Amino acid sequence: MSEPAPTPSDDALRAWFLGPRAENAELLERLLVEALRDHVFWRRNHHPEDGFTIHELDKRREAYDAAVATLTQELMGLLAELKRGVPFFSGRYKGHMAFEQTIASQVGYFAAMLYNPNNVAIEASPVTTRLELEVGRQLARMIGYDPASAWGHLTSGGTVANFEALWVARNVIYFPLAARGAADELGVRLEVTGPAGHRAPLASLDLPELLNIPAAPALDLWDELWQAAPRERVHDALLRHSLQALGYQDYALRLSEAFGDPLPPSVVLVAASAHYSWEKIVRALGIGSNQLVFVPLDDRYRLDPDALWERVVDLTHRRVPILACVSVCGTTEESAVDRLDLVQEVRSRAETELGVTFHLHSDACYGGYAAALTWDAEGRRRSAEELRAEFATGAEPAGPHDVRTREPSGAWPSEGWVRSMEALAETDSVTIDPHKLGYIPYPAGAIVFRDRRMRELVAIDPPYLLPTQGLGSSEDLFLGRFVFEGSKPGAAAASVWLSHKVLPLDERGYGRLIGRTVVGARRLYRALGEADLEPFRLVRLPEPDINIVCFILTHPSLGSLAEVNALNEGVYARMSLSEPGAQPDYIITRTRFQTPMYDGAVGPVLEALGTGTLEGWRSGGKAGLVVLRSTVMDPFMGFAGSGPDHTAGFVEALRAAACEALAALSGP
Amino acid sequence: MSEPAPTPSDDALRAWFLGPRAENAELLERLLVEALRDHVFWRRNHHPEDGFTIHELDKRREAYDAAVATLTQELMGLLAELKRGVPFFSGRYKGHMAFEQTIASQVGYFAAMLYNPNNVAIEASPVTTRLELEVGRQLARMIGYDPASAWGHLTSGGTVANFEALWVARNVIYFPLAARGAADELGVRLEVTGPAGHRAPLASLDLPELLNIPAAPALDLWDELWQAAPRERVHDALLRHSLQALGYQDYALRLSEAFGDPLPPSVVLVAASAHYSWEKIVRALGIGSNQLVFVPLDDRYRLDPDALWERVVDLTHRRVPILACVSVCGTTEESAVDRLDLVQEVRSRAETELGVTFHLHSDACYGGYAAALTWDAEGRRRSAEELRAEFATGAEPAGPHDVRTREPSGAWPSEGWVRSMEALAETDSVTIDPHKLGYIPYPAGAIVFRDRRMRELVAIDPPYLLPTQGLGSSEDLFLGRFVFEGSKPGAAAASVWLSHKVLPLDERGYGRLIGRTVVGARRLYRALGEADLEPFRLVRLPEPDINIVCFILTHPSLGSLAEVNALNEGVYARMSLSEPGAQPDYIITRTRFQTPMYDGAVGPVLEALGTGTLEGWRSGGKAGLVVLRSTVMDPFMGFAGSGPDHTAGFVEALRAAACEALAALSGP
Repeated sequence: MSEPAPTPSDDALRAWFLGPRAENAELLERLLVEALRDHVFWRRNHHPEDGFTIHELDKRREAYDAAVATLTQELMGLLAELKRGVPFFSGRYKGHMAFEQTIASQVGYFAAMLYNPNNVAIEASPVTTRLELEVGRQLARMIGYDPASAWGHLTSGGTVANFEALWVARNVIYFPLAARGAADELGVRLEVTGPAGHRAPLASLDLPELLNIPAAPALDLWDELWQAAPRERVHDALLRHSLQALGYQDYALRLSEAFGDPLPPSVVLVAASAHYSWEKIVRALGIGSNQLVFVPLDDRYRLDPDALWERVVDLTHRRVPILACVSVCGTTEESAVDRLDLVQEVRSRAETELGVTFHLHSDACYGGYAAALTWDAEGRRRSAEELRAEFATGAEPAGPHDVRTREPSGAWPSEGWVRSMEALAETDSVTIDPHKLGYIPYPAGAIVFRDRRMRELVAIDPPYLLPTQGLGSSEDLFLGRFVFEGSKPGAAAASVWLSHKVLPLDERGYGRLIGRTVVGARRLYRALGEADLEPFRLVRLPEPDINIVCFILTHPSLGSLAEVNALNEGVYARMSLSEPGAQPDYIITRTRFQTPMYDGAVGPVLEALGTGTLEGWRSGGKAGLVVLRSTVMDPFMGFAGSGPDHTAGFVEALRAAACEALAALSGP
Repeated sequence: MSEPAPTPSDDALRAWFLGPRAENAELLERLLVEALRDHVFWRRNHHPEDGFTIHELDKRREAYDAAVATLTQELMGLLAELKRGVPFFSGRYKGHMAFEQTIASQVGYFAAMLYNPNNVAIEASPVTTRLELEVGRQLARMIGYDPASAWGHLTSGGTVANFEALWVARNVIYFPLAARGAADELGVRLEVTGPAGHRAPLASLDLPELLNIPAAPALDLWDELWQAAPRERVHDALLRHSLQALGYQDYALRLSEAFGDPLPPSVVLVAASAHYSWEKIVRALGIGSNQLVFVPLDDRYRLDPDALWERVVDLTHRRVPILACVSVCGTTEESAVDRLDLVQEVRSRAETELGVTFHLHSDACYGGYAAALTWDAEGRRRSAEELRAEFATGAEPAGPHDVRTREPSGAWPSEGWVRSMEALAETDSVTIDPHKLGYIPYPAGAIVFRDRRMRELVAIDPPYLLPTQGLGSSEDLFLGRFVFEGSKPGAAAASVWLSHKVLPLDERGYGRLIGRTVVGARRLYRALGEADLEPFRLVRLPEPDINIVCFILTHPSLGSLAEVNALNEGVYARMSLSEPGAQPDYIITRTRFQTPMYDGAVGPVLEALGTGTLEGWRSGGKAGLVVLRSTVMDPFMGFAGSGPDHTAGFVEALRAAACEALAALSGP
């Protein structure tokens, strides 16, 4: 395949980052100094009649001078320390999902940080709370939600965002049950629409039916309940029936009293590829990690929709309620993009055929920004064909040692990939981390709900607020009411906002940027396929859905999986900063495929390796299979000839590390 | 009282901040540019042989130029927007707990942000993870914990920190029960020490006894269980018995099966003054807000220790387990400091007399840094007397309209205040927000556990890690294993670290800074007491324990609480940025004393107001009592004569706002 020709967007790309040689240092310095001085003069313009608090003569005092000396000295110490940091900016860094940040996001963060707004409430952030909500609408639009009815906000990161998704999901899915209790108590008759679209009196539903109301009718029910009786009475009645108030222990008791029907605890279905933080989340929420049901992967590391259907049928037969299904858009290990369109089909089928529904969440913390690829500058969707033409990403030639998958490798993106991105619009919530593929400084996670009413179910009233005053009111803009966190940096909102202004969430901005990283990842993938590493063998895992390239090294002398793992751990140790003082020429990282999560995916990998069996791998438990992993977030990797070519160097470093690691294995 | 004379520390203080007129602009700019250029040259030193990715000629291209133009333009737009932000830096801002940040924290944040380390794992933050753990030790030392056995880290803010405290507490308090199940299954005999110090076989304890093991013996039991059988077996057995794995629903079922004893759900005792986020936290954890038991306040807004004892006795009689008690060090509304020493006495008494214990947590998110006042430069404790001498903060003269409290106003700090700060050392965990009284940019919350082993009970294994490799190993430094959040900004750690270097956590640094704000708050308090606002009356609430001054305005024509509230809401509206476009000369904020939380504290306030009764206030529900509130974080407020004096202007602004608000009440 020939590389795509540079376009005007590619020229723009060179202005978006400081650059590996800090080529844009002048630009960044100019803008930072501008932002600082602008802030300085703002202070001086604020009631200039107040005069000075710190006088020039104060600066001549010994203790003032000593304080400045301490500050300067300690800063120099910090700057020296920081040099032992990770060169994420370099084309030589091919490890975790980290690169440098856009200049826009750095300057935006810094400019707003000087004002230190707190987005907990509009009163402490008159500007940046609005920017945060605008970012929420931008992300909603990129997902395909209607920004007018959706609601999104920033979080400290993906864990809190995903936590919030499941917290809200629990409240929505359990709400009809609480509404039933409250309505009975208030003597109010309400109707509700079930998963198959039939409307029925709330009082006529049994327990499993009450736990299977889709989000939209559950939220309609919420609105209707509040209108059916005085607010204060509804509020008090809900306190006596909602899980939020009762807690799980009393709630479970209440259920068996009211319905004589102690259903098993609700479960959360997650793609087996899901991030380890999901376990933390269900533990913390009191759901319990035993209620986390892993849905098997296919051999491309995507949630297997057929397996999902089987799980849903099985759970339904065992009368186990399903709280939510978590699909992944861009796994953290492989950048695999679940076929969300097919997942959504499973939910539709469950609703009509089984009368069962659940909250559908996409964990797009890593891959969400790739949805920008599917939009043109006029807000129209782009086809897979158009994208393939733009990035010239045809099928890569198969290597002799490649993992053979059912779906053959092909041009990128596939029709299914584009449909999966479009299907984000069909979910109930999506989490996206601007601090990953948004190239924004930490901390910047985000969550978007399709229906803004969801936030009401977790809202809380701080003492200084009276009940709802309507959209756009200071209460509506009091984010601390609706989100899990309280104080949060307005600077993060300004950072994301400014970056979205400079790099629009479509083909011109983030679409182009991420498309370029895909080109770069495939270039690395090709180089690994073509590399002659004899006597080592390099087994490439399937082509990535976005930009994470995974592979395993082996050697004819290694007869067991444990030995292969040791070789790859050795390579990793030599190509990472995990050891203090290490200065590797190229940096990679690694993951570990473990049972039972990777049961559906690991077979063809073991086959290509020619070492170990599925049974042996399974019985190895946590040792699993070590996989080397390179995230290509560097967009310049996708340009041939116009800068350093790191593919050849990378392959050489790999060979050297493998030789050393093998020698170390054999021992002295 | 005469003001304290300026000391060398006060001269240093003038170097610590940019200043209200940006008097230290040159210093800040010099350090920022230094940090930026240092980073730039670090990049250029990294494999200089790689050459350039962005060439000077690239910068001549149209699209590059257009991108720079867009960036510059949009930044100018952002800078213009930001000017509608809150002038936290000004002596005229006397609202929420916000001021400007230390120069050290700003420069530290910025310098590290350029490297964008991610403190989720040492691999992504070789420098800043270590700085974060050092900050944890510094905070531990300030609290009085042994830094060698304690463990602390940063969070995105107070909500996540407090959430983590309760999450960990739940795991510690429920652990002996899980250990009992696991030990039975493994056929292992263990002993454990109960609350009264008696050692007994684990298998001999009944359910209430198992739920009342103090933290230290529970953690010893943890260590012993892991040593009593192979790790893998212990791991699997715990999965079958721990709340983390089972979730609440199955857990409750298991309990009644195993013990035939369905105890009521565990409760969390919190000071009635506790932040509203505690309700969010117990809801999210699945504990339920009904299980949040408010402990009444005394008339100084501090948790009433006698009431706590009564609650504990009553709960014990009703066989209700107590998960934790949350005491507050520096309430967000009044800066009240609970008598933690007396709270700790209640726990000790409960242990010996009732056989009951619980996790003791101090929510010192706001006030924790004030503990710096109790340390001298050599690490010795300072007495109340020494502090009173240093800050010359004698008793304020009583105003004619002051609230009369049982404990009369007196010199600051009281003996009890110092003992409360010292008692932080007796808690199981403390949360402290550097982004509050640490004068650090958002986001920077923190939590410290007295016993580092607590973190093991919530640890999780990401796929790329093998089991524990010991202290200082890369696993030990993988913070994402032990904390709730995942990705988090290393820049925040550098920011706090550098600020602690420049302002030590003792009398020289933060102690001096915060002491100065207390002096300033008392100066404002005195000015309000002396102000002649006829025909209005200003009722001062009791002298603050730290630096938040609360008061209420009234007028002879106002006959009901509703009218008094309306007047104060009117004053607030005129002295805040809550309305778009408002440009008040002075900025305050307000809170609302609500029933039942303030039942123990509001009586003397109503009496001083001469309007409304306790019953009337109670039946008013959420309307409560509006209280005006001024946080004095500005240390320069504590200097007389050396800068603008904002007390007179503040009083004038108050009078004008009151007149306007009253006129608006009377209507046109």
